[in-house]
Amino acid sequence: MSKESSLESSKETNLDLMTKIVSLCKRRGFIFQSSEIYGGLRSCYDYGPLGVELKRNIANEWWKSMVYEREDIVGLDASIMMHPRVWQTSGHLSGFSDPLVDCMNCRERFRADKAPQQPAGKEITYHKGGKSSGEKLKAPVSDRGYVCPVCSCPLMSQERQFNLMFRTSLGPVDPTGDMLAAIDPNMTPEQKRAAVDEVASKTAVYLRPETAQAMFVQFLNVQQSMSMKVPFGIAQVGKSFRNEIVVEHYIFRSCEFEQMEMEFFCEPGTQGEWMKYWCGERMAWYKRYAIDSNSFRLRPHDQDELAHYSDECYDVEYMYPWGWGELEGIASRTDYDLTKHAEATGVKLSYFDQNKPDPATGKNGWRYIPYVIEPAAGLTRSVLCFLLDAYTEEKGVDHEGKDKSRVVLKLHPKFAPFKAAILPLVKKDGLPEKARDIVKKLRRAGLNISYDEQQSIGKRYARHDEIGTPYCLTVDMQSLEDDTVTIRDRDTATQQRIKIDDALGIIQDRMNAEPAGC
Amino acid sequence: MSKESSLESSKETNLDLMTKIVSLCKRRGFIFQSSEIYGGLRSCYDYGPLGVELKRNIANEWWKSMVYEREDIVGLDASIMMHPRVWQTSGHLSGFSDPLVDCMNCRERFRADKAPQQPAGKEITYHKGGKSSGEKLKAPVSDRGYVCPVCSCPLMSQERQFNLMFRTSLGPVDPTGDMLAAIDPNMTPEQKRAAVDEVASKTAVYLRPETAQAMFVQFLNVQQSMSMKVPFGIAQVGKSFRNEIVVEHYIFRSCEFEQMEMEFFCEPGTQGEWMKYWCGERMAWYKRYAIDSNSFRLRPHDQDELAHYSDECYDVEYMYPWGWGELEGIASRTDYDLTKHAEATGVKLSYFDQNKPDPATGKNGWRYIPYVIEPAAGLTRSVLCFLLDAYTEEKGVDHEGKDKSRVVLKLHPKFAPFKAAILPLVKKDGLPEKARDIVKKLRRAGLNISYDEQQSIGKRYARHDEIGTPYCLTVDMQSLEDDTVTIRDRDTATQQRIKIDDALGIIQDRMNAEPAGC
Repeated sequence: MSKESSLESSKETNLDLMTKIVSLCKRRGFIFQSSEIYGGLRSCYDYGPLGVELKRNIANEWWKSMVYEREDIVGLDASIMMHPRVWQTSGHLSGFSDPLVDCMNCRERFRADKAPQQPAGKEITYHKGGKSSGEKLKAPVSDRGYVCPVCSCPLMSQERQFNLMFRTSLGPVDPTGDMLAAIDPNMTPEQKRAAVDEVASKTAVYLRPETAQAMFVQFLNVQQSMSMKVPFGIAQVGKSFRNEIVVEHYIFRSCEFEQMEMEFFCEPGTQGEWMKYWCGERMAWYKRYAIDSNSFRLRPHDQDELAHYSDECYDVEYMYPWGWGELEGIASRTDYDLTKHAEATGVKLSYFDQNKPDPATGKNGWRYIPYVIEPAAGLTRSVLCFLLDAYTEEKGVDHEGKDKSRVVLKLHPKFAPFKAAILPLVKKDGLPEKARDIVKKLRRAGLNISYDEQQSIGKRYARHDEIGTPYCLTVDMQSLEDDTVTIRDRDTATQQRIKIDDALGIIQDRMNAEPAGC
Repeated sequence: MSKESSLESSKETNLDLMTKIVSLCKRRGFIFQSSEIYGGLRSCYDYGPLGVELKRNIANEWWKSMVYEREDIVGLDASIMMHPRVWQTSGHLSGFSDPLVDCMNCRERFRADKAPQQPAGKEITYHKGGKSSGEKLKAPVSDRGYVCPVCSCPLMSQERQFNLMFRTSLGPVDPTGDMLAAIDPNMTPEQKRAAVDEVASKTAVYLRPETAQAMFVQFLNVQQSMSMKVPFGIAQVGKSFRNEIVVEHYIFRSCEFEQMEMEFFCEPGTQGEWMKYWCGERMAWYKRYAIDSNSFRLRPHDQDELAHYSDECYDVEYMYPWGWGELEGIASRTDYDLTKHAEATGVKLSYFDQNKPDPATGKNGWRYIPYVIEPAAGLTRSVLCFLLDAYTEEKGVDHEGKDKSRVVLKLHPKFAPFKAAILPLVKKDGLPEKARDIVKKLRRAGLNISYDEQQSIGKRYARHDEIGTPYCLTVDMQSLEDDTVTIRDRDTATQQRIKIDDALGIIQDRMNAEPAGC
């Protein structure tokens, strides 16, 4: 997405909100830094007991809407390692390699091809160390014609290649020994590099930078085994890996992330209609679960943002605390991928429609390479965006002047880690047993239910508000007599007395209802 | 597991069955070879539209039994890349490195430390090329004292280190350039290797070879954020990666695979009881879904099979076509892992029980490092074992002498990709609309339902038998009049007329019932 165009319409940013979310996520078991006790690992995160449920719930709702509720889409779960030639064909091996450079003044690392342009030889003033308090210095712009995007200094390290894909080696023997054996002192640096790269290439495999290619590579296997008729789609949820130069904004951009991608194969010429259709479907999907549906928008790509294989592209954007940013890309990929993989392998990745006339001959029976519309959503980003969307601080006092301020995570009940919490008023007198009976009953319906007996009822309500549990059911002495409980609504904090037998129905109705914001 | 001990009790093996399973899996969209159109990738597999459902269903049932139905276990979903020091501490970096050697005669690659021993200098007879038709040759055993396990030849390549973990580099700059810069011609081969390894180690990260370590590393975060009290467990489903020397038996042993692991933290001294408990729970879990529960057994490890940190271990084994083999390992890991990570990081990975007397002082309040029981199941292997368990060939003719032979995948309804197929008898007269109404209704209950209108009813039944759909509901002209359908049972092939309104109940009852084999 284009950062420039999105800044115009950005609402007042609230970076404090990020700090609060990060803190809540660690404290309440949503998200931890990976290997935290070892000092953490760059941009890798672990989903804790509540985070894994939130993430699973989002992924399952996506899967339900894509696969279970439709006849025309089926699922796939491909391996993370694929044949290396796949990435040659897709362009990731070359297209993902870009020149990288370090500023000698402020140590910023950036992409040379994205740096601000300046005429070679021009004298540039910059601050030593990149700090505005630093001594003012001057240097001329080199032949490379660019300066540091952070401190404007024109003094740079050599450009170095980097590849956004993680490379590893398949086969149990470490190739390092063979690499060393392949070089000799008489070689030039370029020859050495070539010799080492040749050894590496024999066993090199890559962690996929997107899940999409598996759907193209397995197009025929899926179409034939499931007797699919165009138009049809293949959906996948899974991890992808990118060795990002800049990791930022918590889980927004990290090296290991999860995607929910669907490739929709359609007849050439119909891609425009399907693009409209999928933009509508996907926006509606997000808004179905959102509190503030104005935080989601659809932004068409400018012509110069389009990938070379794409004839149209939209981003579903979310208003993050730092401004509008990408949440999902919906790309019209034409017949580029299937065509390229067919050329590379000699396998005909085409579809034969016996009932359609071939436009070339007018006769019935048309073999064509399908066009593709790809709604590619970020699962990791969806977790972040729905946490941000749900986070609510309520201030106020009740009629007795007592502070009623609270933090509520107004997650859609489908996304909430627990669908309800069952709270015995006290830890004795048979209340825990009664409460656990209710837990069992609700769990049998497939719901994830919390049993919680620690601390006061007020603290328990607050705790469940903060993690987004839609309902708290409190079991008291009366419950033993008449099989009723009080049910407390997370969003309104109101309580009412209901029959235990009605609890499941109430919880399920709420899960299936449209959110209040709609 | 010990191959030797398991062979004694192996039943008549049926390797044809594997061929049939592999073929069915490709033909019907369960499992494809990864990147097949590029010639495939060593031991990597993609789960097709039906395979992804089977795998999801198994994982979800495990998650339900571990997390949703219990108060004492919570989930985790950690990143695949972890801090490299985690693997140093756990022993994987050294313990997973072993000497590997190639036979110069038959080209077999094997672990030197596992090869048959022979006295150095002894003359050994072997066949050229490892073929019994090959010329007989003789050679003496070298000082290394072992021979090829396949052809007995004593002529070997140099031993080379290999590491079972996949190594990659975190950070966008490829370290190859720095590696080349770090060596100079005057270095010995050992010095060169050390210099290169030092550069590599600065950015090296590994793909996890097991999911378990994340549960140890995040022990405190999980315990504190969820206020868990010992005994409690942390469960995780996810991918792991091992650069296996030998990949074999289809998805049984592959480099990329999925695990369902749970670390159960308990009080020191109680690990024996909990081991018994978890062996019972896990065996019962498998048998709940199995057709032939005799194909599952529990085998205690011999003393010499135990890892150095383990004081007791059991394998849940399945009778694969090639004999008994591991499906799940249940290990008593003592306090080894928490102790090691605490030593390495200085973080106290202990638990304080304020109500228990400290055995050392007799006073209330005991701080200890929990012991761990780990039921570690293979999700990928479970897919294979339940496919094998379910595959059934029925031969026979009906009373008119017509062939009634069929292939039935008798998957437990919870595991079946589709819970029911809805079949309009013909593709007209309003039957497809009526059928699709039923599909919608059943999908609303969260069931994955197939709508199938292609080919004759008989072919459709056969198709759904082969992929394990428990019920076929056929919509005919009578359905339009009285809202009834015929329901056909996969296992008995019997049909009866039922009200459409009763269909959901019948399907759900079957899903929740114990299998016929119990």
